[in-house]
Amino acid sequence: MIGTSRNVPDLFWLTRFDAPDPVCAVAWPGGETLLVVSAMELGRARRTAAAGCTVETVETLGLPQRVRSSQGATLAAVLSGRKVKTVSVDASFPVGAARLLEKAGVKVGVATASPFARSRQVKSEAEVRCIRECQRAARAAENALRLAIRASEPDSRGRLVYDGAPLTSERARLIVRGVLAARGALDMDGTIVAGGVQAADPHESGSGPLKTGQTIVADIFPRSLKSGYWGDMTRTHFHGRLSPQLRKMYDAVAEAQKIGIAAVKPGVSGAAVHAAVKDFFERRGFKTGRDASGRPYGFIHSTGHGVGLEIHEEPRLSPSGSLLRPGMVVTVEPGLYYPGVGGVRIEDTVLVVPSGCEIL
Amino acid sequence: MIGTSRNVPDLFWLTRFDAPDPVCAVAWPGGETLLVVSAMELGRARRTAAAGCTVETVETLGLPQRVRSSQGATLAAVLSGRKVKTVSVDASFPVGAARLLEKAGVKVGVATASPFARSRQVKSEAEVRCIRECQRAARAAENALRLAIRASEPDSRGRLVYDGAPLTSERARLIVRGVLAARGALDMDGTIVAGGVQAADPHESGSGPLKTGQTIVADIFPRSLKSGYWGDMTRTHFHGRLSPQLRKMYDAVAEAQKIGIAAVKPGVSGAAVHAAVKDFFERRGFKTGRDASGRPYGFIHSTGHGVGLEIHEEPRLSPSGSLLRPGMVVTVEPGLYYPGVGGVRIEDTVLVVPSGCEIL
Repeated sequence: MIGTSRNVPDLFWLTRFDAPDPVCAVAWPGGETLLVVSAMELGRARRTAAAGCTVETVETLGLPQRVRSSQGATLAAVLSGRKVKTVSVDASFPVGAARLLEKAGVKVGVATASPFARSRQVKSEAEVRCIRECQRAARAAENALRLAIRASEPDSRGRLVYDGAPLTSERARLIVRGVLAARGALDMDGTIVAGGVQAADPHESGSGPLKTGQTIVADIFPRSLKSGYWGDMTRTHFHGRLSPQLRKMYDAVAEAQKIGIAAVKPGVSGAAVHAAVKDFFERRGFKTGRDASGRPYGFIHSTGHGVGLEIHEEPRLSPSGSLLRPGMVVTVEPGLYYPGVGGVRIEDTVLVVPSGCEIL
Repeated sequence: MIGTSRNVPDLFWLTRFDAPDPVCAVAWPGGETLLVVSAMELGRARRTAAAGCTVETVETLGLPQRVRSSQGATLAAVLSGRKVKTVSVDASFPVGAARLLEKAGVKVGVATASPFARSRQVKSEAEVRCIRECQRAARAAENALRLAIRASEPDSRGRLVYDGAPLTSERARLIVRGVLAARGALDMDGTIVAGGVQAADPHESGSGPLKTGQTIVADIFPRSLKSGYWGDMTRTHFHGRLSPQLRKMYDAVAEAQKIGIAAVKPGVSGAAVHAAVKDFFERRGFKTGRDASGRPYGFIHSTGHGVGLEIHEEPRLSPSGSLLRPGMVVTVEPGLYYPGVGGVRIEDTVLVVPSGCEIL
């Protein structure tokens, strides 16, 4: 493995060393891990790395100084020095480093799926606590936003005015961010607060005034600065009265989310959960397809995804979703999107338990 | 290129598309860029991508649905469909995708340095504005922290008490984060507030009570959520009176930082700037080396690094630092670290201008 602890989750999961700059690591077949850090990081790494993790530097390993030029060169020197003939790397491993290993006579096999990513799907109690903490922060932020929308008054053009100033997507994000920041869980990849027709695009982060009578999709996915784990929660807020069409969409999504949550249990596949939600929307008459200009409409994304050291990780609640097992943490987030009309999404993050699932 | 806009800065720099999920892109020799996104992202990508960027999906390109399984498969289909024989990728390109390209008959060359990373070193006016905005947020946060330290009273054991409660590293970080969050510039990789002997480790983020008479290193490096650009600033704060040894360290670092800033100008190498700072510390009698247990002491890191879409990027103010050019943005951050004693670091981010440099 090569990278920073935040960009290469396998590396952090295995070593528990919070590396802001790239490091390299080797997991030996016996279960031991070698972590190679810079001289500057040696003290901190030895204090904080996981048990079973040996921390060294180019200097303590007695390697030539020139291999400090890159992590790939360091890794090549470590492996060829120990007469390693083959290694297995994740598909995301940098090709430049792979070429350096091959030049040093080490055969590089690309694993279809990293064995650690597989282990990471089932969370420990400590990991669940970290995700739950992010969910608490997200819920507090959703509540703050809900209260602001409720306390708003519409102006003559229907734009919400809160506490003397227009309530825009941008200002709503500041409300969310303030709550998250105080809890050490930051919305590093942004927060979606999209109202009206903007909400018809699930990844549109939203801009400008929020209005009465619109659905306002607020998707909050904070990462804990301390633990590195993510949370993920979406609520669809609204002020005043929705049009009959939006109201029907809202009610259908709320019901679909309950159906999805009820379907999540050990031994059921992510594909089956997704199919249950998809079938429900179809039965209710909500069509999914593509309009004349190629824009998708309806239920246009999968039902959910794993959450952990990555905001989107295995397992998936999608047509390719595999069997669920106790300890897995997944989102359940059905949505409906109609260009020119608006969007609705409701999302919780749940823990698979023997009897079904628990909302975190 | 394959990845998210936040993890692959070249990709974002070229397309300006804010991709939360991995996408792939090809920069053609003529200057055009092809960006391939998911069907769900098509509308947003076409609205927001840079001029000169053609946005397509697997569907609009008429590629077989099975290539949606991975970005590497998509890229292989795009390139082999256009009879491309060779591509050049950055060393960080994923090896799994490289193997898929090779399997499709496309030769993959690994560039020593990405041509875009090279162009990214010299910032446009718009980019400088983004970095300056982060620096303003960092300065506001440093000021908030300075005021809190100043308003603190030490208890009988010298621990700072602020507003009725102990001022810890953790609480100091909340003060910093609150200021940053309100300005949309988040400390995604953390904030260092390390006091006393903890400050002797430059990457120790700090924990527990801050005390009077200690140096307190506060290194704040926020990233703008909106623009994706970083800022970087460090101040060494203290309450009460420093020991003569710490005071001498502080004064030397402050002077070294002035020397470093004075040395930054077009046509001077990063190596020369680093050497000027290093020589100054040596002349002043501050030794750099390694103690019996292997712990480094003295001036143990480089003088600075480029700042932009990466917090640490080219050019470097280090022994390998290349020539500086107008428009480059670098940190100047000398520091002194003595285990058991403490640490001092002072850092500004500067823009290289024809006459020298300007502190952002």
